[in-house]
Amino acid sequence: MSGFATSEYRARLARAQARMDAAGLGALLLTTEPEFRYFSGFLTRFWESPSREWYLVIPAAGDPVAVIPEIGAALMAGTWVADIRTWPAPAGDAVPLLAEALREVGGPVGLPSGPESHLRMPLGDFARLKAAGGLEFTDDRGIVAGLRAVKSEAEIDRIAQACAVAGRAFDRVDEIAGPGVPLDAVFRDFQRLLLEEGADWVPYLAGGAGPEGYADVISPARAGPLGPGDVLMLDTGAVCGGYFCDFDRNFAIRCVGGAQRAAHARLIEATQAGFAAARPGARACDVWRAMADIVGEGDGRLGHGLGMQLTEGLSLRAGDARVLAPGMVITLEPVIATAPGRIMVHEEVIAITAGAPRALSPLAGPDLPVIGG
Amino acid sequence: MSGFATSEYRARLARAQARMDAAGLGALLLTTEPEFRYFSGFLTRFWESPSREWYLVIPAAGDPVAVIPEIGAALMAGTWVADIRTWPAPAGDAVPLLAEALREVGGPVGLPSGPESHLRMPLGDFARLKAAGGLEFTDDRGIVAGLRAVKSEAEIDRIAQACAVAGRAFDRVDEIAGPGVPLDAVFRDFQRLLLEEGADWVPYLAGGAGPEGYADVISPARAGPLGPGDVLMLDTGAVCGGYFCDFDRNFAIRCVGGAQRAAHARLIEATQAGFAAARPGARACDVWRAMADIVGEGDGRLGHGLGMQLTEGLSLRAGDARVLAPGMVITLEPVIATAPGRIMVHEEVIAITAGAPRALSPLAGPDLPVIGG
Repeated sequence: MSGFATSEYRARLARAQARMDAAGLGALLLTTEPEFRYFSGFLTRFWESPSREWYLVIPAAGDPVAVIPEIGAALMAGTWVADIRTWPAPAGDAVPLLAEALREVGGPVGLPSGPESHLRMPLGDFARLKAAGGLEFTDDRGIVAGLRAVKSEAEIDRIAQACAVAGRAFDRVDEIAGPGVPLDAVFRDFQRLLLEEGADWVPYLAGGAGPEGYADVISPARAGPLGPGDVLMLDTGAVCGGYFCDFDRNFAIRCVGGAQRAAHARLIEATQAGFAAARPGARACDVWRAMADIVGEGDGRLGHGLGMQLTEGLSLRAGDARVLAPGMVITLEPVIATAPGRIMVHEEVIAITAGAPRALSPLAGPDLPVIGG
Repeated sequence: MSGFATSEYRARLARAQARMDAAGLGALLLTTEPEFRYFSGFLTRFWESPSREWYLVIPAAGDPVAVIPEIGAALMAGTWVADIRTWPAPAGDAVPLLAEALREVGGPVGLPSGPESHLRMPLGDFARLKAAGGLEFTDDRGIVAGLRAVKSEAEIDRIAQACAVAGRAFDRVDEIAGPGVPLDAVFRDFQRLLLEEGADWVPYLAGGAGPEGYADVISPARAGPLGPGDVLMLDTGAVCGGYFCDFDRNFAIRCVGGAQRAAHARLIEATQAGFAAARPGARACDVWRAMADIVGEGDGRLGHGLGMQLTEGLSLRAGDARVLAPGMVITLEPVIATAPGRIMVHEEVIAITAGAPRALSPLAGPDLPVIGG
């Protein structure tokens, strides 16, 4: 299940080229995993190694050119990309090969340069590429991020699959968590459940626990056992076919207090308000407002886009005026302060459609589940 | 087990500052996960999200300054870093805050710019930072990579722990693989075994299977069942306490052919030759030569450094003249061609000491194990 049909990549390319034409760009140069994969279908966990660079050149007309290390040639040959040029990385020098490919295609060369982007290339190599001559570099006018923000049905299917996997794993948390169980054991076991339920891999898991919630939503597991009355939160980004889910669940350990119960019900109420507001034409800040009216404004965002990355694209926050469109996939992630320095967070994944959103994660009800009884 | 003792970070800082002084650098600016963590101890899987930047400024004198999103403040407060400056990412603008911190510290500002490095910062933001005035940017003279190449005992302990976890998981592969089992199921279950044996998470797994070996060592799992007589290879980068193992094992499924048996024995012979050659003062290319004399020169590298990343630092290849020193941790990874387009690969992890290397992975013997009988 690593790639899509070639028609999917051809459609992406055509959309990119239409925008490049309008922007006067001769090429796009892509260096990061999701950007490279978006146009090529090249899926490998080998990006975990920083020792080699991977370059994809999108021309204003014609097909992509991959400039990659030899070690990737066999896997790349299985994608739809036909023009594959290799060098013996980490020996050898990619810069002349890349410069030649870019000169053939012609510039100006657009590089993703806006929010969430970076150039996965040593700065020293980039300086030499710029000095190679005959090339003009500019930003990509947000073209790649703009295309990725609206998902195809095939992409949404994969996100839905990842969400279903995580939903089944969340249904089994009572098998692995209860009073006295260390939080790091819960984390380890929850990743195991995700794999058992069908995740390809589990790039992300965070969470926390405490009687009044937790301090943040980004911490790795700490040792130390769960206690009766704790609220346990697990937030996962599991991957199926290269696409993420990103949602969480809260659990009361053995017994539940009134304040916890009320906070959870409020979070669900906010999620439902966000769900109702998430219609095409609404702005990201409108959906934020619908939730913030219930949980308070706080100082963070209350959801975000996702897809090939755990978070990508728009933010549900006060200042984000981006407009929702069918095909966008976002999380609704209200946060509520429960005590000084403590919060509770709930998160779901939805796809924007022409009408009401489609829930990709199995929407939780208001009752905070109690486990480990 | 997320951080080390403060003395470890102080020692790293002192070594960096001595080198910065010699190089005439006023500051280092670090933007990627391992660089940031090396000096701060800040460990989170939240780097999986591209939506926020994380900056660490190492001054020529005095303590580090962290310029980070508000969402990280609670976790960062648990590290030894005291000077923590936050902005409300992804709203707000980090550039003025970062520019101010860098101006306080004074330049020139060294940025990691050599092999394996990149700047995890939007190019647009970097352009604005450079335009902010009063700052001079240059490369870091390889200081950060040079420091990271030599591990402390505490670091080696964590790599050893990750290797032990993977060793126990490899001992259980007969529980999950055999004739008729799809390769993607084996991948999923092997990750589960790694977690059961104590991995914190499993950022990397690759492998392949076939009667004459496999096409590469970077592919994700394909569907399709294992057959009798296949050679199955699994190559994992599991993490304990933020440090990787990286080694593989080969298994014959039910029955083993003479060519497979001979290829595996040759790989082990090469590994042993590499092990014998891996003494302080030897160059990376000397260790490569010892192995290449047995398996043939091929066109790739036959091992590499590792640590906070799956691969980092030197390459065991013809052109790499870097000299081994006690505290370096490397893999020995001989490759042998078994048929056109097919290879077999073996890999172990060792630490360089004053004398013979210390095996961190449980060294495999020459007999290709047969499972699924």
